[in-house]
Amino acid sequence: MVHAGIAGATGYGGVELFRLLANHKDINSISLYSSSEAGSPYASLMPQLSEWFSDELKPIETERMKEELDVLFLVTPAGVSRDLTPLFQGSGVKVIDLSGDLRLQNPADYEKWYKKPPAPGQLLDEAVYGLSETNGEKIREADILANPGCYPTAVLLGLAPLADSGLLEKKSLIIDAKSGISGAGKSPNEKTIYTNTEENFRVYKVNEHQHIPEIEQQLKRWSGRSEAVSFTPHLVPMTRGIMATMYVDVSLHEHPESWMDLYRTFYANSPFVRVRDEFPATKDVYGSNFCDMHVELDERTGRLTIVSVIDNLVKGASGQAIQNMNIMLGFEETRGLKLFPLYP
Amino acid sequence: MVHAGIAGATGYGGVELFRLLANHKDINSISLYSSSEAGSPYASLMPQLSEWFSDELKPIETERMKEELDVLFLVTPAGVSRDLTPLFQGSGVKVIDLSGDLRLQNPADYEKWYKKPPAPGQLLDEAVYGLSETNGEKIREADILANPGCYPTAVLLGLAPLADSGLLEKKSLIIDAKSGISGAGKSPNEKTIYTNTEENFRVYKVNEHQHIPEIEQQLKRWSGRSEAVSFTPHLVPMTRGIMATMYVDVSLHEHPESWMDLYRTFYANSPFVRVRDEFPATKDVYGSNFCDMHVELDERTGRLTIVSVIDNLVKGASGQAIQNMNIMLGFEETRGLKLFPLYP
Amino acid sequence: MVHAGIAGATGYGGVELFRLLANHKDINSISLYSSSEAGSPYASLMPQLSEWFSDELKPIETERMKEELDVLFLVTPAGVSRDLTPLFQGSGVKVIDLSGDLRLQNPADYEKWYKKPPAPGQLLDEAVYGLSETNGEKIREADILANPGCYPTAVLLGLAPLADSGLLEKKSLIIDAKSGISGAGKSPNEKTIYTNTEENFRVYKVNEHQHIPEIEQQLKRWSGRSEAVSFTPHLVPMTRGIMATMYVDVSLHEHPESWMDLYRTFYANSPFVRVRDEFPATKDVYGSNFCDMHVELDERTGRLTIVSVIDNLVKGASGQAIQNMNIMLGFEETRGLKLFPLYP
Amino acid sequence: MVHAGIAGATGYGGVELFRLLANHKDINSISLYSSSEAGSPYASLMPQLSEWFSDELKPIETERMKEELDVLFLVTPAGVSRDLTPLFQGSGVKVIDLSGDLRLQNPADYEKWYKKPPAPGQLLDEAVYGLSETNGEKIREADILANPGCYPTAVLLGLAPLADSGLLEKKSLIIDAKSGISGAGKSPNEKTIYTNTEENFRVYKVNEHQHIPEIEQQLKRWSGRSEAVSFTPHLVPMTRGIMATMYVDVSLHEHPESWMDLYRTFYANSPFVRVRDEFPATKDVYGSNFCDMHVELDERTGRLTIVSVIDNLVKGASGQAIQNMNIMLGFEETRGLKLFPLYP
Repeated sequence: MVHAGIAGATGYGGVELFRLLANHKDINSISLYSSSEAGSPYASLMPQLSEWFSDELKPIETERMKEELDVLFLVTPAGVSRDLTPLFQGSGVKVIDLSGDLRLQNPADYEKWYKKPPAPGQLLDEAVYGLSETNGEKIREADILANPGCYPTAVLLGLAPLADSGLLEKKSLIIDAKSGISGAGKSPNEKTIYTNTEENFRVYKVNEHQHIPEIEQQLKRWSGRSEAVSFTPHLVPMTRGIMATMYVDVSLHEHPESWMDLYRTFYANSPFVRVRDEFPATKDVYGSNFCDMHVELDERTGRLTIVSVIDNLVKGASGQAIQNMNIMLGFEETRGLKLFPLYP
Repeated sequence: MVHAGIAGATGYGGVELFRLLANHKDINSISLYSSSEAGSPYASLMPQLSEWFSDELKPIETERMKEELDVLFLVTPAGVSRDLTPLFQGSGVKVIDLSGDLRLQNPADYEKWYKKPPAPGQLLDEAVYGLSETNGEKIREADILANPGCYPTAVLLGLAPLADSGLLEKKSLIIDAKSGISGAGKSPNEKTIYTNTEENFRVYKVNEHQHIPEIEQQLKRWSGRSEAVSFTPHLVPMTRGIMATMYVDVSLHEHPESWMDLYRTFYANSPFVRVRDEFPATKDVYGSNFCDMHVELDERTGRLTIVSVIDNLVKGASGQAIQNMNIMLGFEETRGLKLFPLYP
Repeated sequence: MVHAGIAGATGYGGVELFRLLANHKDINSISLYSSSEAGSPYASLMPQLSEWFSDELKPIETERMKEELDVLFLVTPAGVSRDLTPLFQGSGVKVIDLSGDLRLQNPADYEKWYKKPPAPGQLLDEAVYGLSETNGEKIREADILANPGCYPTAVLLGLAPLADSGLLEKKSLIIDAKSGISGAGKSPNEKTIYTNTEENFRVYKVNEHQHIPEIEQQLKRWSGRSEAVSFTPHLVPMTRGIMATMYVDVSLHEHPESWMDLYRTFYANSPFVRVRDEFPATKDVYGSNFCDMHVELDERTGRLTIVSVIDNLVKGASGQAIQNMNIMLGFEETRGLKLFPLYP
Repeated sequence: MVHAGIAGATGYGGVELFRLLANHKDINSISLYSSSEAGSPYASLMPQLSEWFSDELKPIETERMKEELDVLFLVTPAGVSRDLTPLFQGSGVKVIDLSGDLRLQNPADYEKWYKKPPAPGQLLDEAVYGLSETNGEKIREADILANPGCYPTAVLLGLAPLADSGLLEKKSLIIDAKSGISGAGKSPNEKTIYTNTEENFRVYKVNEHQHIPEIEQQLKRWSGRSEAVSFTPHLVPMTRGIMATMYVDVSLHEHPESWMDLYRTFYANSPFVRVRDEFPATKDVYGSNFCDMHVELDERTGRLTIVSVIDNLVKGASGQAIQNMNIMLGFEETRGLKLFPLYP
């Protein structure tokens, strides 16, 4: 009997988490929590979710939550998890945090990039970074999990085979990333209004995005690489999907096929990573937990181009959170996530 | 051990059927058939479906299919099922036809609206029209099922409560329907090219669409109504979704609430119909088998406005086909279809 | 030397007006006014308009405006023109109001549908309704012009040939209208956010839209018709464009061709109305001042289907306002508006 | 009396050229030519262009064209201009070629990247490369003009201030480019079908695009730079617009402001280049001949990020062709092009 809770169930990440957990065979019941909407039936706020779930949102009362829950997902704005997670330490409730609060181990990095007070160092030390494909052993034993950001998921999965082989050290690394609009959340503003988004392609937060230190931290852990990366996020007129196009200068003159072999071998046992024969498109993974990727060496420039795609709300957030829960609770890794992409 | 087959698995309806059946607990195996692509691995044609399914497409060999299959879905162009279905009569294989071949009981109607030779009368007599919510008893005993068209599904579900109460007889009925582009299929042409579709809203086949006789036939069955209906389909710059906006002149002066009661009562036991407090939008059902609807009387004109929405590829095609299969094979009606809409 | 002013130059209608006036040969200078943004350079608020226009927005000071201007466009929210227009009466400045304040001659209608206090009756009496194609003589002599709403423009142009021939009297009339999102204005909210709009088709204000009395008033003026109309507006996931699909029961049994002749004859001298051989699509008029239309009789139902399309920001607002100015000031009617639609 | 001709008037570039030329004050008449559609009224093929232009398409008869025309635009597929242009050499008709046939001075480059036989070397020698902002003097005297490709226009304008200052020599240069779908032309195929494009972001021809040698050739002309560039084009789900995001490693440690100064000074007299205070978006130039750009140095990586945007059909094709014609014929450079972008 596993009871899962979601705090922040009305944002895009929370709804996606609910949608996926509702079909997870090993989850027996789901409770939804909200500070602002407690008492309202979930289906009245989310008409598309009516039928089959008639519960009200519950208030965030930590004592009761500790009694009820086995696992708690925090899909809350920056700054909430920092205060809420410590209340569950030692309670036996596994906490999976989808916010950025627990991802950066160095509190100074959080302050610099998020411009908010960081979580306590002891909490940051305990939190395990949950890039499922590469940190499985630690995730298995984690009580507190920092679920990766959407961009870092696409980027790091695309770079892991290189980093793991020591091929990223001292290399120039440029990441040109593109995301659908759902990444900007559900609050309407000048950047998310339809008329300013449709037939428009924008660039934002050039070299200033808070996912930069998360990417650099992990590259350093893997390979000791300490160089800064260039990271340019763009907004695509579509709802879901991220593509990361990455450029790495390589010195060795291996044959292109071998790069693909490197990737295929690295991900041979990863059910959600598909190393593809062709460069993938974002719709190839729409609504699914897959990360598709392809890599090619350009002989003219001696430069690798790596392209990886994910659905930012699934593999880039809620899907990966469930994948991590599966690992933490000893379920089959694909449980609840064996979904093909929507087509078309 | 239930073995399902899909003929025509590479079109939009076929892929959607595969996607949904792949997560259906009571289906043990799936075979895919194609006349043109037999021998190719399905995942090589549909890269988004790679992983978890490595079978090749099989040729359409009816003798072997009769041995293997318990149920066969035909997702084939007009004119195919007419010839193929008779080969399975009496074989024990349940046939569910998603094309229009078996929907019109009067062969002359088929000839007139489809402009092709009709199926044999005996076959048309045996085929049961599968509007799941209103024809359950006959569907339960059907061996050959004619799955409704996408527009007729949205339209007829929106009108059934009225027709059932005799309220549609001799009434003016106007249906203004809007569909996403996936309804036009996957062959690229001037009408489906992106640049001619995005930022464009079009009307087509005004009073000439082949779904008109299907709608009129069912209204006549229900209520003896024999008046022609006005039906105007439009193309919306989006991939999935149908909205039918329907106008019925009513003479009786009942209070608006009672219209909603009529609808709520009629669909009290229908798990996929949601009679909503507000007019629904197509995205409320995106990727799901729901049909959402709302009705209001305009006191100024004495006219009812009924709006119903479906995902044309799910409730309007493959989802309803599975719902019908569930009824035909005695499975729980919602099996494999208990999916919430994607949001956003 | 003609000097034009725009009050409300930062909304969608105001920007479009500026864009078009900037290329109008008979307009020598343009002043832009704003109550909230006075003092800011226009190009700093609207970066896409930088280059070629470096003026600041001016405050709304009526005395100075009377001295400077020959014509003033009001592109202001409901309730503003009601108070502002009277200050220009008798000043020699022609006022063209793009808001709904002066469109309804009966103050009670305004109160009922706009839910605000109406303009003074004397002002409503003086204001001329500016449906350019059908009211030219009065427009020529108008000092105060009420520019039609976007929906009424598409609807009334589509119905004028019928109304003018007395064919609409006592007829059932149903208007199913579809608009792009720019019609909802530039303030971001839950209805205009991209993620809730893309891949979504919605219906709103069913039988409650404030354009209904405007349509009914004009139909009554033309033909004495006093029946209420059914009007259902929808939102299409696109930025610009309106299509009105209209249904009229007709009793006479004329041959379809004659309906087209009726339309062609009626609009023979209207440079912006194109009576087309086929039903038009919204993109056929994108960015232009055209209204395209087509009409067909359905022999089965004895019902006419009339479809008209406009660009809601051009013919449905700023373009028609300029067309009216051209008529009022004695310029060539097409001056500044001889623009082909963008394609694709 | 200037008479302009367009060969290939039914493709996207040709229609845009006609749309813009139709409002060009110094062009007195326009003739349209087509090999396949000669004899058809243009407006019957392009219903959105009916009204105001009733001419038929003429056959491509070079003798008659030489008599009639002052300037001829070729908007023809690769391989046509190569054969057609020589027939006009010495005729007094200025030829502006929008295809890629005359852009690469080295025939071997054309063969390698276009995979077709190249134009004669003498023709390539005579053709002037028409990047209007940087090659004005030669354009002024040109009889045969090679109009730049869409991507090279955005890329080269973004790099010209650096190249001109010698700052690109021996530098790593990565170009990550994004284009709307209209760049793929009007023939429907699997890549341009709506359902495969909407909600999809794709990458294509990685390091294989035929615009690569065009970019490299011009960089070499400017600065002697001979290093290969990385160029990755992507397809954005929108119709118009190109953004080029470019990365250049810089060694000198100048203050960021100075980079902007370099750009502002370089383009001080270029009416269509707007060096902006913020990174631009593609919609900022929609439907206009502007190229907007911004540049920033990242102190962490010592790398410049340059972003430039254009409308691929205007500045990236037909608009720049008219700008070049203006220069060649001695008209005001902005004539016929002083159009603000559409908004929204």
